[in-house]
Amino acid sequence: MSSWLDEIKWSADGLVPAIAQDASSGKVLTLAWMNREALRLTLQTKQAHYWSRSRGALWKKGEQSGHVQRVREIRLDCDGDAILVVVEQEGGIACHTGRESCFFRRLGEGSWEAVDPVRKSPEAIYGPR
Amino acid sequence: MSSWLDEIKWSADGLVPAIAQDASSGKVLTLAWMNREALRLTLQTKQAHYWSRSRGALWKKGEQSGHVQRVREIRLDCDGDAILVVVEQEGGIACHTGRESCFFRRLGEGSWEAVDPVRKSPEAIYGPR
Repeated sequence: MSSWLDEIKWSADGLVPAIAQDASSGKVLTLAWMNREALRLTLQTKQAHYWSRSRGALWKKGEQSGHVQRVREIRLDCDGDAILVVVEQEGGIACHTGRESCFFRRLGEGSWEAVDPVRKSPEAIYGPR
Repeated sequence: MSSWLDEIKWSADGLVPAIAQDASSGKVLTLAWMNREALRLTLQTKQAHYWSRSRGALWKKGEQSGHVQRVREIRLDCDGDAILVVVEQEGGIACHTGRESCFFRRLGEGSWEAVDPVRKSPEAIYGPR
């Protein structure tokens, strides 16, 4: 019944890297991790769920920020060890820094430079901390 | 001098996941892994190099197929544990199956379905095996 889950080559700790890509801008938004439950929930709810390795917990993208990712497509790569999720990004912001994409730093002359604009301040997203 | 390399959160085995995205089509092509040497070579040569976890060896993308990836940009995500490489994909083929992208399987009704065309047969790319 869930043999499609068995076709995935889960890592030793039961995870697979999942890339989220914006369906309209084409931007690569995030790289996060999924376990079976996260992927199952992602399919079921059509909203991206991940496994937080730092918190050791399942996590619905946008649960705090409201910046949920509505899933259009779920794809698997040729060797079955990476997932691509094509999403509609609520608010046009995927990053906790308030930017569209988490990949906002570009390698310049020997350093990483933040090159993409902040669309909304973290304070405005999450409230004062 | 290479402090930009130290800003990356390398995994316990010295790797970081690297997404390759096509600069013109915007397609996500591959997810592979880099160690320090692979990333250094990628920057130096402007051609994508990866670390093959299965072969335990450094690997220049396209060394056999000719389908090299010319690097336009190297990006790092907000928490420093994933790389995005924006590339010009030689031949328009990144996958060893002869497809543009390795993410050619889409989750349909309970199964993964190959939905993208083969642009060139593996035999034509690699020769008979």
